Amino acid sequence: MGMYMDVHHGMVGITADQLKEAHQADLAIEKQEGVHFEKAWADPESGTVYCLSQAPSAEAVQRIHEKTGHAADEIHPITLMV
Amino acid sequence: MGMYMDVHHGMVGITADQLKEAHQADLAIEKQEGVHFEKAWADPESGTVYCLSQAPSAEAVQRIHEKTGHAADEIHPITLMV
Repeated sequence: MGMYMDVHHGMVGITADQLKEAHQADLAIEKQEGVHFEKAWADPESGTVYCLSQAPSAEAVQRIHEKTGHAADEIHPITLMV
Repeated sequence: MGMYMDVHHGMVGITADQLKEAHQADLAIEKQEGVHFEKAWADPESGTVYCLSQAPSAEAVQRIHEKTGHAADEIHPITLMV
C-alpha cells in the first residue's frame, strides 16, 4: 500500500454537490481495488481537483476513478510527506 | 483566510531531509504573511511537491515560498473539500 495524489483537470465550475457525489461514488466501490480515498480538494475556477488516497497502485486508483466516470489526468505516488 | 494548494514542479529526486528543511524554512517565516503551511506531499520521481496552506491570499503564499527560495509554479485557491 502507498499514498497517491491524483489530479483532475477540466473540472471548471464543479460544485460542492458534484464533488461530494463524485467522492461518494468512489468510496462506494473503492474496496473492489483495495483503495481508500481520504480527501479531495477542488479549485472550481481553474477546474482542478486533487484526491489523496491509500492504494496498492496508481492503476488501482485509476480503475476506481474510471468506473465512476472521472479518470484522473495525473496520479503521483507520494513517498514523502511533512 | 482561505485554503490554498500550491504545486512545485522540477523537484526530481527531492529527499525526505530536503522536503523537511524546505517546509521548516516556510514555517519559520510564515507568520510574516499570515500564512500557515499545514502539509506537504512529494513525488520525487516526477519531481512534484504539493503544499496545503491556510492563507489570506495566493500572493501571501508565494511571498513566503519566494523568500525561502522555492517559488511555487501553481497556487490554487481551494474552495471545496470533502
